[in-house]
Amino acid sequence: MGVKMLTINKERLQERIIALSKIGKIGETGVCRLALSKEDRQAVETVKGWMEEAGLKARIDHFGNLIGRMEGKNPNKPILMLGSHIDSQPYGGRFDGTIGVLGALEVVQTMKENEIVPNSPIEVIAFSDEEGCRFNKGLFGVRGILGKLEDGELERKDKDGITRREALIDFGCDPAKFKESEYPRGSIGSFLELHIEQGPVLDTMNKPVGIVSGISGPLWLTVELEGFAGHAGSVPMQMRKDALVGAAKIIIALNEIASQEPGAPTVGTVGSLQVFPDSRNIIPEKVSFTVDLRDIDLNRRHKLEAQLHQKIKEITEEHQLHCNIREDTNSEPRYCSERIKEIMHNEIQQIGLEPIELMSGPFHDSLAMSYECEYGMIFVRCKDGISHNPKEFSTFEDISLGTELLYRTTVQIAQE
Amino acid sequence: MGVKMLTINKERLQERIIALSKIGKIGETGVCRLALSKEDRQAVETVKGWMEEAGLKARIDHFGNLIGRMEGKNPNKPILMLGSHIDSQPYGGRFDGTIGVLGALEVVQTMKENEIVPNSPIEVIAFSDEEGCRFNKGLFGVRGILGKLEDGELERKDKDGITRREALIDFGCDPAKFKESEYPRGSIGSFLELHIEQGPVLDTMNKPVGIVSGISGPLWLTVELEGFAGHAGSVPMQMRKDALVGAAKIIIALNEIASQEPGAPTVGTVGSLQVFPDSRNIIPEKVSFTVDLRDIDLNRRHKLEAQLHQKIKEITEEHQLHCNIREDTNSEPRYCSERIKEIMHNEIQQIGLEPIELMSGPFHDSLAMSYECEYGMIFVRCKDGISHNPKEFSTFEDISLGTELLYRTTVQIAQE
Repeated sequence: MGVKMLTINKERLQERIIALSKIGKIGETGVCRLALSKEDRQAVETVKGWMEEAGLKARIDHFGNLIGRMEGKNPNKPILMLGSHIDSQPYGGRFDGTIGVLGALEVVQTMKENEIVPNSPIEVIAFSDEEGCRFNKGLFGVRGILGKLEDGELERKDKDGITRREALIDFGCDPAKFKESEYPRGSIGSFLELHIEQGPVLDTMNKPVGIVSGISGPLWLTVELEGFAGHAGSVPMQMRKDALVGAAKIIIALNEIASQEPGAPTVGTVGSLQVFPDSRNIIPEKVSFTVDLRDIDLNRRHKLEAQLHQKIKEITEEHQLHCNIREDTNSEPRYCSERIKEIMHNEIQQIGLEPIELMSGPFHDSLAMSYECEYGMIFVRCKDGISHNPKEFSTFEDISLGTELLYRTTVQIAQE
Repeated sequence: MGVKMLTINKERLQERIIALSKIGKIGETGVCRLALSKEDRQAVETVKGWMEEAGLKARIDHFGNLIGRMEGKNPNKPILMLGSHIDSQPYGGRFDGTIGVLGALEVVQTMKENEIVPNSPIEVIAFSDEEGCRFNKGLFGVRGILGKLEDGELERKDKDGITRREALIDFGCDPAKFKESEYPRGSIGSFLELHIEQGPVLDTMNKPVGIVSGISGPLWLTVELEGFAGHAGSVPMQMRKDALVGAAKIIIALNEIASQEPGAPTVGTVGSLQVFPDSRNIIPEKVSFTVDLRDIDLNRRHKLEAQLHQKIKEITEEHQLHCNIREDTNSEPRYCSERIKEIMHNEIQQIGLEPIELMSGPFHDSLAMSYECEYGMIFVRCKDGISHNPKEFSTFEDISLGTELLYRTTVQIAQE
């Protein structure tokens, strides 16, 4: 299949991505645009200007979200919302979040140019503080509009001791008026988000664009093993209770459990591990490590978790280790709307691409939106799956194809 | 076999061990007597007093060693030296080193009381700074008398910034006169050391005393693996280059390699391990860990090391990891004298005990002495193999039996 002509304006989209990447630029290709920083404000103002150029009515709400609205034929219909975020990691890339906001703007501007009037209002949104690195808690803006902030969030401090409350006020927001910026339940009908994949699946399959099946919630465990220390030179092998040997067997067991079903998107990772006393000539007495297990199929994840617990039991018994397992997070997968996926499957083939479905391991603003309305996500291939790093890279061709799919999907939904 | 009557004075030995344990006492059962500290000085003065009580000519040399001399029939014969150390770890026990010094003193005092005059002179020595924890380099006194100090040793600082030179001068030593305290080559004929096992072998075999076959030198490696980081949620299992999974397989391989020959004293340990970036939702990019491999049979150790290198090669290829292996230490085993071991085998049976031979994993003052003269070591059972800890424990019965074997061995050698 050859790729069809694009409806959206690739050059305009590309210019805006390049222009935005200069705000908070680090090195040749990196971006540091921390949430609610002056770089973030400058970026928000810049995108607000482009929204107004496109004929949208733009505002910055009290959470720091930037929202541009295009009215529809029926102003009382639930809103079709499109967007993502433009804040970045401290050592981040140019595409994460950004293409979802500028892509959404490009979609609406193209609709206007093509004189397509939607039935429902469409809002393009750049959510405030998706990344969460500044105050160590993310998805702030999206949870804000849904009335889901938690107690104490405004008192969280950044590393300079500035509270989120102070940062919001500096940004021009008024935390006392949060209620005015909330969306009543039912007022948002659908949410669409375009994002780079942040993983290597599309790159490896050599596909520019994929349709997301859902965001897999992780199961996060912390496993603590306790054996018995002793001199590495004097305790015979058969008398040892070596916590690190036990941990090593569990790491391999998790790797095998997560790999056992060929083609399944299951992933299992031990990312963090500490040894005590961590001395080269002392047998490890204690080892603590994390487990991250994800699957879009919650039943399969439960089955694999049970296998892991059984393996941990066998291994700790064999090595005479005490074991404590703490559950830190247990999130359920959040599936994309079947209806929206069906539209995307049709439209992606119209563009001339194969309909590829893939799971999202990382979370996105869509995760919070999934509890409010139906949602759909489009992934754009990124080189080697690298993200949260200045090396993050997607081609403008791929981004344009992803934006074209977002445009076509939006037009279909907007005309229902 | 029943245990025969003891020749040595168990009560006197016990009283001295208890008295010495009060100098630098921590908690109920611990000792902190750092090398060249005021507690160490007080302990040295106390033991010097006991040496003089026993009729020895006692002196403190310029390295801080305490030496008590009993003349023999022939003052020109090479010295028979007995001893160990009385400095301790910062959070140490009452028996490590101490029983080797007080046991040696008990041996010589018993000889005097029994009017046994040795052919060669006998010296009882408490070596300065065996532990090495204060200046991060041990076996100081023993290397000193053998002329084996290294450049810069006097400038090493403790955590308070005090150099070893300053600490020696405070202790009453004169580093300018080191030469006067050295022993000419050939002037020491044999060295005998009594020590707690610091391992669980005798305790597990339910034997009070063992004869040491040798001190196994460790092979120390540092292995660095490098894979590729990625989001734990987005990189499919089959695309991963997870450095921690590779490390886990190597840890298990080492454990199997060191355990493969039943009954062999081989030990293999990964005691220290670091993960980078050590984040629960990032696939480990780099893992660095230590390898400690010991065996009293150097040929077997070489064979097992080759097996390990082959395994590391296979595992790193399988997981597409870069691997760098650094050799930090490669010490050869130092065997005890066959002649001395034969005497010990005969004498231990005279006492009514079974002759058990075992390897020493940890090193001791004997390790340095092994390059100067023939040496023999006797191990006393310690509970659960615990040492370098206030929980370190040996019974006075076991210590007396070890001292009795040291006495009988000394008398045999002294009368040759």
